[in-house]
Formats: sequence, structure tokens, C-alpha cells
Amino acid sequence: MKEALYELSLIQAQQLIAKGVITKEDYLEGILDRIADVEPHLHLFVDFDPQALRTNCSKLSAVSSNLKPNKPLLGIPIGVKDIIDTQQLKTERGSKAFKGRIAPKAASVVQSIEEHGGLVLGKTVTTEFAWRSPGLTRNPWNLAHTPGGSSSGSAAGVASHCMPAALGTQTLGSIIRPAAYCGVVGFKPSFGTIPRTGVYPLSPSLDHIGVFTRSVEDAAYLTSFLIQNDGIDFPHHSPLPIPSALNLSNWSDAKTNMRSPKIALLKTSKWSRVSGEQQQLIDKTALHLSQSGADVSVLDLPPSFDCIWDMADTIQFAEAAEINDHLAREEPCRISSLTQTLVMKGLNVPMLEYVKAKRKQQELIARFTQCLRGIDAVLTTPSLGEAPKGLEDTGDAIFCTPFTFLGAPAITLPAGYSSNGLPLGIQLANDWGSDARLLSVAVWVENALRKFYTPRNLELKL
Amino acid sequence: MKEALYELSLIQAQQLIAKGVITKEDYLEGILDRIADVEPHLHLFVDFDPQALRTNCSKLSAVSSNLKPNKPLLGIPIGVKDIIDTQQLKTERGSKAFKGRIAPKAASVVQSIEEHGGLVLGKTVTTEFAWRSPGLTRNPWNLAHTPGGSSSGSAAGVASHCMPAALGTQTLGSIIRPAAYCGVVGFKPSFGTIPRTGVYPLSPSLDHIGVFTRSVEDAAYLTSFLIQNDGIDFPHHSPLPIPSALNLSNWSDAKTNMRSPKIALLKTSKWSRVSGEQQQLIDKTALHLSQSGADVSVLDLPPSFDCIWDMADTIQFAEAAEINDHLAREEPCRISSLTQTLVMKGLNVPMLEYVKAKRKQQELIARFTQCLRGIDAVLTTPSLGEAPKGLEDTGDAIFCTPFTFLGAPAITLPAGYSSNGLPLGIQLANDWGSDARLLSVAVWVENALRKFYTPRNLELKL
Repeated sequence: MKEALYELSLIQAQQLIAKGVITKEDYLEGILDRIADVEPHLHLFVDFDPQALRTNCSKLSAVSSNLKPNKPLLGIPIGVKDIIDTQQLKTERGSKAFKGRIAPKAASVVQSIEEHGGLVLGKTVTTEFAWRSPGLTRNPWNLAHTPGGSSSGSAAGVASHCMPAALGTQTLGSIIRPAAYCGVVGFKPSFGTIPRTGVYPLSPSLDHIGVFTRSVEDAAYLTSFLIQNDGIDFPHHSPLPIPSALNLSNWSDAKTNMRSPKIALLKTSKWSRVSGEQQQLIDKTALHLSQSGADVSVLDLPPSFDCIWDMADTIQFAEAAEINDHLAREEPCRISSLTQTLVMKGLNVPMLEYVKAKRKQQELIARFTQCLRGIDAVLTTPSLGEAPKGLEDTGDAIFCTPFTFLGAPAITLPAGYSSNGLPLGIQLANDWGSDARLLSVAVWVENALRKFYTPRNLELKL
Repeated sequence: MKEALYELSLIQAQQLIAKGVITKEDYLEGILDRIADVEPHLHLFVDFDPQALRTNCSKLSAVSSNLKPNKPLLGIPIGVKDIIDTQQLKTERGSKAFKGRIAPKAASVVQSIEEHGGLVLGKTVTTEFAWRSPGLTRNPWNLAHTPGGSSSGSAAGVASHCMPAALGTQTLGSIIRPAAYCGVVGFKPSFGTIPRTGVYPLSPSLDHIGVFTRSVEDAAYLTSFLIQNDGIDFPHHSPLPIPSALNLSNWSDAKTNMRSPKIALLKTSKWSRVSGEQQQLIDKTALHLSQSGADVSVLDLPPSFDCIWDMADTIQFAEAAEINDHLAREEPCRISSLTQTLVMKGLNVPMLEYVKAKRKQQELIARFTQCLRGIDAVLTTPSLGEAPKGLEDTGDAIFCTPFTFLGAPAITLPAGYSSNGLPLGIQLANDWGSDARLLSVAVWVENALRKFYTPRNLELKL
């Protein structure tokens, strides 16, 4: 059985370990074997220590204390994007300026993983500071194509079965887009649900933490252990907006129990930029879901939402400049020209434009909720099409930006292939705080699409 | 009995009306008589219509629907600060530029009052846009002194027994300070608890709605009906952070049940600016509370909090400029020079300074919670001393600013008199979200101070 261990989903692995069918050490070895095979070609990791991992894995005990009697992530190795602080492994933030940096403390989200029995598998490649300057990771479906960014190593790592799940972050489209390019599930919960303490910020008004997995249920299961109020980030967000419905038991039957979810097709004014085959995929998906019993409608957002892309840029540029201005001036040779340009753009943002964008963001978050009344999920594209060729450009985030700007939960699922054999995805989203409903719809959609879409086996052409 | 009706507290009046001991019409007439006597001298209102009020009062029915079987504010007339939109009365925002303006819709907070059976008594005088350019209201304790600002009419109105309660807003110190100057209770709950939809903004990152009453219990009772998520303002704040503990029943016994509340005396680096008699009042209060059984300690905040005053200015100036820049340019003759200066200052705020102040605000809110661990309330001064002489200067807000910047609940209670016979107050505060605990401590303190402080009858020298 050992050969196939790395193909288990997170929940499958967790259950087999919990029941004693496999040991956590065996599972880890299966993962390590897989990584040994593909890492030289995919370049997933910036720091990775198999020996230390084996030690950490053996030390894990199923029962830690009376307070946490069982560990729902026991023995699950999880890839962690390199802008997220960890204690044993380096956190270089994709930057030469932080070469060799050891964080003083693990990020809150990493602490959550470890408290629940999970393992930090390795630090996955990120673009520099989660902005655009790419790392070395390649797309497992075609090594000549980008895996997308900025959470490149996490998306490619889950796609290539080197890890059952990974952490990423999204400021505009850094989870949804690489997940779609690599043919995996990417989920970004509502703004404010997973604390970002110990994560290098790009734009605090937009930065979200999220997960990569190979199924919606895995994404929901993992996320349910990451949501908390750590008392540091999002001090206003208490108590947490997502109910315990995120526990697996609550929706293991959602795919069969949900009847006729109300799904709204949202194309936005940017639709003409989407590739022909990606447009077709979304249109076909809408029809397939309708045939499966969904109540599908077309949603037009009012013109007041058209400012979203400009306002998101304004906020991101200004906040990135505030964070990185010193660094860009003090270490100009160790900061990429793309990041230098970002800081420059930020420094040129007029103050009133930034204040206005922040105010508009709050207004539109509320208005989005009004627009989605009676709708269970929005259906749109996660990307303009397949992963672009080459590693320089990590792709366009314009269909991810609205939901990041609106702090809205969003998820992408694989739903087809391009003529070049690269994966294509769909994106589902909802308004702020509707995470549990979105995930229920996504499980239903994932199940409904099985009639129309057959996942292909990934054959790495090494 | 009619002569004394206007002296009833909110809860007294509410109970007598509910039990049928007095009619709501009689109560209103008592209030109207009082207003007729003092309004020519105090100038509380900018819009006020006794005839319409009588009609509205008679139309009120105790039972409205199955959904809201009883109306806990039935027949209670409440003063509403003139930056808060109402439907029948004008909302001029203290500005010549909005002379005669009728709002399209009542503010969410006004809707809450009306849904619970309360009446909008009249629009109370505010400084222009709740900034510094004063209105005509005078301090009822001495007509030559300011009532404080910006919620001038609300503070003076409650102090002069023209209303049992009034709404105000606080961006730096516009509730706590005038309440202290006028010898009444002023309470500002945590940021994000009372939605500001329909309230003219001064600085959305700092603007709070709060109440004026003549007792802590009245403040708690009224506030409990104003807290809601209206789906427009604070879309992230859901569900609400304040439990139903705000219902009166939960703490009518708090004053006797609370044992040894932990109270921390906080003087800050600005203490030397406080008048001698105000310093003495706070020191004496700390001793009195200790003698009454409180566990009183001294709190020093870390130096990282010293930036609060500058950062609050940065945020307020920048946001006020973003809101009023157009107005200041298009209507220069109808905007006061103080507001013109505010806008000018705002336009000169460097963008990075604003972004940094917003980021620091979030950091310090979380750090404040850590600093207050194990403390039930902070004790400090609400003002530098008695209400300043003259009407031009509405007084200094520096001891209110920290709690507004930190989104923290704060309350002032009257606790003594200056040598000039003007009221002096104390201020109690807590960290964000600890409103219920703060109010419980405040009830206890109010009760404990009765041994050491005898409220004087207000004798208007007309």
C-alpha cells in the first residue's frame, strides 16, 4: 500500500491514521518518497528537512492534554508558504533581504496546525513578499508553465501529491489563481477569520490566509481548525463569524441533502478578457449545474462596483509602500525591480485616494451582501484561462480581486482542461461571513460536476 | 406630581408609564414645560416642534406587533444630536451649508429608538460637523461657561432635566467631555456596536455613537436597545460583541453583588495638564473606591501608547478632509474657519503617515487588551478640569482620545464640584468589547461614591 499513500486525501489519511490502519510514520515516508521524486523538477520548497520531520512526527502523541483530548490533524504534513513564520525552518519571505532568517516564533496559524497534531512539512516557494517577482516552482501539469503566484509552491505541491494540504495567502488572487492553474481546490475564508499574526504583510486591508487541498471537504476540514481569534490580529472580530458548522460532520451529507442551491453567474465588465475555452467552461458549468437541479440565474452588480479593481490597487500599493519603503531604500540591491516598482507606485498614491478607497471598501462589503440576498453562491471564473507559459508572469488576478477586496469567502474547484491539457477551474464565492453556506454549495457542486468532468491522472513529464 | 415629572430618570419614567401610574402624554407635558422655561437661556435645540411631538406621542401604541410585544422605551423623549438624521425634524449638522436640510431617512440609531417606542424630542445643538466651531448652547451650571462639545445640546439638555436621555457622538471626546462639564453620565460603547448609518461622519475610523443620561443604569438600559447590526455600517461586526447582559435585569444587583472590582488608576504622560482640583478629585476617588472595597492599582501603559494622540489627529484630519474637502472648496463662505483649517491640516497629512496610523491603531487595540488583563476598569479623568469659561472653546479632549482611538468603551460619572461650583467627573474605561463588565463596575462605583459625594440640585441662574 505504501506506494499510494501520498495520493490519500487529507481526511482519508487522517482517518486511516486515527484508526491505526496506517501509522503516521508510514504516511510521512510515503510523502517523503514522493517529494524526493518530484522536488528536483518542481522546486516546491525553499526550506525542507526530512530528518527533522521524522523526529517531529515520531514525537507526536495522539493525546496531549485533557483540554484537547484528540488531535484531528494528527500526523498530517502541511506545506507552509514561506511568508508564514515557522520555528525550525527558515522564513525568507521569497526575498534575498531575508536570506537565512529564522522567525522568533511560529505564526498563529502554524501554532493552530501544530496544536491539532499537524506537521509543518516544509516552507513552500512564494513570490517575493507575495507580490509578483516569481520563484522557481513549475506547474506540475507542464513544467514550461507557471504554477501561478504568489502561493506557487503550495499550489504545485498539493497538485503533485507531495502534500495533502498547504497554506497560502491571498491579497488579490494568490490562492484562487494558482489553485486553478494547478487543478486543485483553493479556499480563502472571509476576511478576519484566520489571524495573520506572524505572516509578512503585503496589504493588511486585503491579506487573507487560506488553504490548498484536493477536495472541498478537505479544505473545510482543515480551515475549521485554523479559525480563531488570537487576540492580536483582527481584535474587533470577536466572537468569530463562522459557526462550528465547519466541522466535517455538519456537511458530510451536504452534497445529497442540498436541494436546488441558488447559484448566480457573475461575469463582470472584464469578461471579454477571459479566454474562449475558459468562457465556455464557465457557461457549460452553469448549464451542468442547472441540469443537476441548481437554480441558476445571472447576476449583474451595480456600476458602483466597477471601482473595485482601481481601489484594490490603491489600497495594495499604498499599504505595500508603507510596509516596504524602508527596506526598498536600505536594501535596494536585494529587492526585485517588481517590488521596487510596487513601492514607487504606492508612494505616489494621493492620500485622499487611499482614504476614499478604504471607505468605499467598507461600503461595498455591505452593499455586496444586499446584492447577494437569496443567492447561495456566485459562480465565476478564477482566472483568464490556463496557466500562462513561462515562469516570469504568474498570471492575472482580476477575477479574484473583487472577492478579496470585499473580504468575501471564495473557493476554486477544478472543472476541466484546456486544449493544451492544463487544468481549468471554476470559482464560487459568497458575501462576507457566509463561509459555511459557500462550502456547502461547493461540496454540492463538486459532486454534481462528477457527471460532467473526469479528473485526469497527473503524469509528470520529467 | 406633574411639576416634578421632568426630574424622573429614564427608567423611573418608563416604569411609571408602563404601569399606568402616569400617562406618556403627562410625562411629555412635564418635559415640554421644563423646556419652555429653560430653552430661551440654554439654547439646547436647533429644531424642536412641541405640537408634532404631542401628535407623535398620542399615536404611540404600547403594543405594535407580535414580533415586538412590548416597547421598552414607550413614551420616552430622547434628544438627538443634530448630525444624526431624523425624518420630521431638520438635520443641519451644525452647518450653514445644510440650512433647512431634511434627511431622506432616519438614521439607524433613530429607527432603533422609534421601534422601541421612544420619541425624538428635538435636534440638539452640535458644533459644526461635530468638530470645534461651537453652537449657542450654554452650560446649565453657569451660563458663562461652555457645556463642552461637540454634543453640546445633548449634554446640557440632560443636565437641565429637559430630557431623561440624549444621543451624542464622540470622535475624540465629544460625549465624555461635555457630560463631565455638565455633571451627567456619558457612555460611549465599543467601536462598532451602534451603527452610524445616517450620521454625518467626521472620521469613520474614530466616530462612535453614545448616550447621555443621569445614571449609569439609564445609560445601560438605553444603549441595550441601540446595539444592532444594521447590515450597512460595520459589515464585519457580526454577530455583535455585546451580550444581552446589557439588559437591565442582569445588573440591577451589580452594585451589591460585585465584590472588590479591580480598578487601575491611569494618569498617562499628560497628567500635568490636569487642573489641581481635578487631579485631587481623581486621587480622592481612587482612595474612596479602595475604602469601599475595590482593589485599586496604578497602571502604566508602555511607551508604545504615547503615539496615540498624534495618530488620532492624523486619522481624524485625513478622514475629515476626505469627507469635507469638496464642501470646503465649493461653499467656502458657509464653512467655519475652524473646519477650513481642519480640512487644510488633513490635506497636508502624508499618505504613509495615515496608513501607518491606521495600522498602529489596530495593533494598539490588541495590545491594550493585553495590558488590561485582570483589570475590571481603568479610572482616569474625563477632562482637564471644570468647563472652561466662555463659549468659544469647547474644551480639551486629551483624556478621552485614548479610549476613542482604541475603540474602547468609556463612561463618565459626576463625582464632585469645582471651587466655582461647576461639576467635575471621573472616567472609567475598559478594552474593546468589555462593555458589559465596564457598566457593571460603573454601577458599583456610582453606588460606592454616594458615601463621599452628594449631588447638588441644579439651580439655573437665569
